[in-house]
Amino acid sequence: MFYEFYGFHKRPAYLNDYIMLHFDSDYMRGCHPEILERLSQTNMEQTPGYGCDEYTLRAKDNILRACGLDNGKGDVVFLTGGTQTNATVIDLVAGRYEGVMAVDTGHINVHESGAVEASGHKVITLPSHSGKMDAGELDSWLTDFYADDTWRHMVRPGIVYITFPTEVGTIYSKEELMALREVCDRWQLPLYIDGARLAYGLAASPDVTMEDIAAIADIFYIGGTKCGTLFGEAVVTRHPEWFGNILSHIKAHGALMAKGRLLGVQFSTLFEDGLYDRIGRNGVDKAMILKNGMTERGIPLFMDSPTNQQFFILPNDLIDRLLPAASFELWGPRCEKATPVRFVTDWGTTDDDIKTLLNLIDR
Amino acid sequence: MFYEFYGFHKRPAYLNDYIMLHFDSDYMRGCHPEILERLSQTNMEQTPGYGCDEYTLRAKDNILRACGLDNGKGDVVFLTGGTQTNATVIDLVAGRYEGVMAVDTGHINVHESGAVEASGHKVITLPSHSGKMDAGELDSWLTDFYADDTWRHMVRPGIVYITFPTEVGTIYSKEELMALREVCDRWQLPLYIDGARLAYGLAASPDVTMEDIAAIADIFYIGGTKCGTLFGEAVVTRHPEWFGNILSHIKAHGALMAKGRLLGVQFSTLFEDGLYDRIGRNGVDKAMILKNGMTERGIPLFMDSPTNQQFFILPNDLIDRLLPAASFELWGPRCEKATPVRFVTDWGTTDDDIKTLLNLIDR
Amino acid sequence: MFYEFYGFHKRPAYLNDYIMLHFDSDYMRGCHPEILERLSQTNMEQTPGYGCDEYTLRAKDNILRACGLDNGKGDVVFLTGGTQTNATVIDLVAGRYEGVMAVDTGHINVHESGAVEASGHKVITLPSHSGKMDAGELDSWLTDFYADDTWRHMVRPGIVYITFPTEVGTIYSKEELMALREVCDRWQLPLYIDGARLAYGLAASPDVTMEDIAAIADIFYIGGTKCGTLFGEAVVTRHPEWFGNILSHIKAHGALMAKGRLLGVQFSTLFEDGLYDRIGRNGVDKAMILKNGMTERGIPLFMDSPTNQQFFILPNDLIDRLLPAASFELWGPRCEKATPVRFVTDWGTTDDDIKTLLNLIDR
Amino acid sequence: MFYEFYGFHKRPAYLNDYIMLHFDSDYMRGCHPEILERLSQTNMEQTPGYGCDEYTLRAKDNILRACGLDNGKGDVVFLTGGTQTNATVIDLVAGRYEGVMAVDTGHINVHESGAVEASGHKVITLPSHSGKMDAGELDSWLTDFYADDTWRHMVRPGIVYITFPTEVGTIYSKEELMALREVCDRWQLPLYIDGARLAYGLAASPDVTMEDIAAIADIFYIGGTKCGTLFGEAVVTRHPEWFGNILSHIKAHGALMAKGRLLGVQFSTLFEDGLYDRIGRNGVDKAMILKNGMTERGIPLFMDSPTNQQFFILPNDLIDRLLPAASFELWGPRCEKATPVRFVTDWGTTDDDIKTLLNLIDR
Repeated sequence: MFYEFYGFHKRPAYLNDYIMLHFDSDYMRGCHPEILERLSQTNMEQTPGYGCDEYTLRAKDNILRACGLDNGKGDVVFLTGGTQTNATVIDLVAGRYEGVMAVDTGHINVHESGAVEASGHKVITLPSHSGKMDAGELDSWLTDFYADDTWRHMVRPGIVYITFPTEVGTIYSKEELMALREVCDRWQLPLYIDGARLAYGLAASPDVTMEDIAAIADIFYIGGTKCGTLFGEAVVTRHPEWFGNILSHIKAHGALMAKGRLLGVQFSTLFEDGLYDRIGRNGVDKAMILKNGMTERGIPLFMDSPTNQQFFILPNDLIDRLLPAASFELWGPRCEKATPVRFVTDWGTTDDDIKTLLNLIDR
Repeated sequence: MFYEFYGFHKRPAYLNDYIMLHFDSDYMRGCHPEILERLSQTNMEQTPGYGCDEYTLRAKDNILRACGLDNGKGDVVFLTGGTQTNATVIDLVAGRYEGVMAVDTGHINVHESGAVEASGHKVITLPSHSGKMDAGELDSWLTDFYADDTWRHMVRPGIVYITFPTEVGTIYSKEELMALREVCDRWQLPLYIDGARLAYGLAASPDVTMEDIAAIADIFYIGGTKCGTLFGEAVVTRHPEWFGNILSHIKAHGALMAKGRLLGVQFSTLFEDGLYDRIGRNGVDKAMILKNGMTERGIPLFMDSPTNQQFFILPNDLIDRLLPAASFELWGPRCEKATPVRFVTDWGTTDDDIKTLLNLIDR
Repeated sequence: MFYEFYGFHKRPAYLNDYIMLHFDSDYMRGCHPEILERLSQTNMEQTPGYGCDEYTLRAKDNILRACGLDNGKGDVVFLTGGTQTNATVIDLVAGRYEGVMAVDTGHINVHESGAVEASGHKVITLPSHSGKMDAGELDSWLTDFYADDTWRHMVRPGIVYITFPTEVGTIYSKEELMALREVCDRWQLPLYIDGARLAYGLAASPDVTMEDIAAIADIFYIGGTKCGTLFGEAVVTRHPEWFGNILSHIKAHGALMAKGRLLGVQFSTLFEDGLYDRIGRNGVDKAMILKNGMTERGIPLFMDSPTNQQFFILPNDLIDRLLPAASFELWGPRCEKATPVRFVTDWGTTDDDIKTLLNLIDR
Repeated sequence: MFYEFYGFHKRPAYLNDYIMLHFDSDYMRGCHPEILERLSQTNMEQTPGYGCDEYTLRAKDNILRACGLDNGKGDVVFLTGGTQTNATVIDLVAGRYEGVMAVDTGHINVHESGAVEASGHKVITLPSHSGKMDAGELDSWLTDFYADDTWRHMVRPGIVYITFPTEVGTIYSKEELMALREVCDRWQLPLYIDGARLAYGLAASPDVTMEDIAAIADIFYIGGTKCGTLFGEAVVTRHPEWFGNILSHIKAHGALMAKGRLLGVQFSTLFEDGLYDRIGRNGVDKAMILKNGMTERGIPLFMDSPTNQQFFILPNDLIDRLLPAASFELWGPRCEKATPVRFVTDWGTTDDDIKTLLNLIDR
């Protein structure tokens, strides 16, 4: 079934005892062992539901501190998945029938089954530059939009959506983020950052910190699912007044978890003992070892990513040779001789995993 | 206020007694005098509401006959405006959360304030070729879409939307329509034709007839608003079973007219004595006179349209000279020396109107 | 078809030359002759679309003056039908996923095919008292709601909806309206009045004026469809800032009329020369003559209404005798011996109509 | 915070070392230890996402077998929470803008923040009889609805929703379920059973089995959140064709879990070694001990429930005495002398818990 799902060949029987390597995505394992431990320890405790428990409170405190938003300067809510979070946040912040600006490769425009449109908001697209939105292009688009006498017949943007890191592993520099911030300020548009893989983005960035993200974005989410938790995303805003009736809004989106403390336990742990940083660090470190190993072997990069997603152009025969022992994603349709592929590392990837993979290539 | 709306200069006082010429759009007059007469004649009659009257029945009969869909082979319902019709039809035919394929210049993607997304359907865009969708590109897009293992995470198209004539006045040849039909059949996708200006499109077409449209499209609408009625669009389908609970669906969209007979009276008249043809004919004939007059004067075409919308590139000083006496739309932002403009004729445009306009240019 | 629609008997052939009397509803005729005249006079004029014309401006001015909201104290927009208006206004004023409070017989809760829920708002119901909402019950409901610790898991009301007159022809006294206003103020809830038949309500009221309605409601609509126009409802608010992006909101609801001037012409006429008052007056006067005539004949009232809808309990044999010559609505399923029925008068009903009807009864 | 949330008194300091008893709800603990063990064992495994893993396959098989729907007779999908499941299922099964019939106390009508209306479906209510829908009343309502000539202007029901057990702990007999089934068949309406607490309902029922539920309902869900899992609900249907594009539908509702195997691991465990039965059994057994204990002490039942929710009328002074040491829900506002309360047991409740509670009462 696994093979089928990915459209790969059937796994040969002689490999059955072989531990397969998986680089398909960063959501393939359960959760980081430190988180599992805390979930186990607290399992039999009884707490009130819907996020009204001590663990959730502690998670909020931890996160707000990490964001420089403690002392009432911000607020946090927890949801269970990324698509759900994007749809819920955009529907909260954008006005009724207002659209959301995104690059055409943005996750909300591609791989969310129309969840954003499902609550009535058009995704308005700009060209993607290695996954990123260009502040100048955004500004021009907005200038042209409002210069058009018929703009009231078109969909007005009510929020700007970017991802950090992007869907292709790239990250914005602080300067690029500040430029977007400036354009958003000029047009009074809230800036929303989808941080599904934020840990890896921050670990890779030479200059952007969690506090920067919290200060530059009006609202953003700290991804858990791909960064160490079983599930869960923490939505942070420096406009706490936006969360006035947030519980009802979340529940209307079917996104309110009964045992909210599961999110509290996981996120409080994630923001203690530097766990979130360590998770990001490991994913990026292993990705760099992989990238170097591939480059040394003459395998060209399809895209130069500093984070935990690495894109190469692999010869088709190498792909066929690797697949029975290591899984990864073909990035687009199979080409004639060589095909772009994606390898993803995460908090659980080890040096040995990379070494084994490179050995497979060398064989 | 008129000037302001269009972002034009203030009209000079010395022109106050001058009858201004308007070529802004084809929705600027009331209705064709023959329709007004029937509305007046029937005004004091009392009929049941919501389209359950004799006039609506007669309008349906007339239309089905014109479409070659009489004898139970089709059905018709009436709505009041184009955006409303598009949103209601797409939401009827496409499955829940399925998208609609359109070219990027398609009316539903630009000038409908997100009405389609408001009921949960994403507009998926293909490149526009002079306003038209290319059958080959549609086929390729669909091939690629379903070849992508992740397509279930993306928005699946549930309907294909084209306009005849397009937003820039062009029309599909019968061959082009058949090619689209074939692709739709291959992928089992319903084809929907927005006929806001259908009368002008048919009048201009060398080979496409109303019966062709009815046979090629699964569902389409015959525009009234821009083609002689006060308001109203007739939605026709050759799948009468699709209209099983149509009244409730229309009303849920806020689109059910209490005095439905107003639509019945107008559309029954439109399809008697060749009125719809005459209306289309006049719009196109006057447009051709205008195009010839402009071309003779060395004014370049911005786009070559065979229908009632004509696009020229006018020198800015000519624009400034014309505007106090004739209104028309700048097609996009004002350029440095010459700017694309649109002139629209309709059922009410006279030879004199065109002559006066050309005289103004010659002055 | 007419008979079938209403579930009535087939009309006997001998009555074919007989002019049938219709009391089914107040949307059965076209428009008041003075309005038709103005539509005819202006028919060939060309104006900009979407309500950006002089007639619409004039209609707004006339209405704001009639409401005591001129000089920037209010704003007006025009839509085409009642259900559309209710859905659009409620979706504008209530917050995302907030509900609307209404009595269980309220039009939005019964006869609008779920148009309000279609944009995501629950209709929360209170018991109807002859069609009216009781201010005390509203207050109690709200007190209980917010006293319930789980209210955030329920739908919070974001607007209060009442009809004036109600679906059963009754009207609120000024005192009753003020009591509702007070409760709305206490809970910071906007009050919305559906005035589909406002003309008849004001004509019947001993103390409520148009200015009162405009001052007591936060937003309300002046019905045209049932009060003299071909179609159209004027939405008035004393919070003009609520209409900041109203054109886009209306269009996203598919409710923006291209030839907006049709609404402007009709409503400007309606509010000149006392036409709206005269229309309301005629409907109510004729209804009172009918009520008296019926009562004198010993026919019991089913409900005592002061407006243009009159409810009687007619013996079934009388119903059967009347139906071939006069149409009216059975108010609910046919009972064993006598059945509640509704007769509706309007601006076009004449003394003769009533006299003929009463003669038919006497025969 | 805990106390505050429930509107209870502050917990006295002298009780700090005391292990508090919680009977507020059945979602207060983590998950059953056998499930936690399996989650822990499989934590570091890597599997494909979105439910395309072996554990999910196994969970489906287990469930279909338990339902008598193996061998292609049914299908299963997993979602994370109850409100989400209700909104997603109703929006899948009911036609666009069709409503859902429920009793007025139904969870979807009360405590789901309008999630059902958020996707455009009206909740149409019937009176609740101890939480249950009466088949005869449903039949009458439908008869009246379609007898009303105006039904096309009203919201047509597209699905019937009941809960088993109900929100007040009661259960339908097999005969009552069959009666509902018959009415649904007569009107061609799908029957949907919300089984948030299904384990406790089946454990309490003298005659209804899981296979009965699967055969009687067209679609239903087996609740995990309140019956032993951390989260998760399994939606089962005997119409597998309904799940043709279910993944996209679920994702459009923001309800698709990336690490779908978490649901697979939990539900496969739940349906092995009789765990689901044992969980239901424990909840009900402890509830009966509690009920007997209370009754022996002369405390009256507020509602007679055979399942894990027990309703009593407690004297206010007893409530005040218990609260510092045991939590439970006041069922409605505090009354003058005695107040209805709810105590909930679950899979984790022990004999000792009940004994301690009864001792507290006796003190």
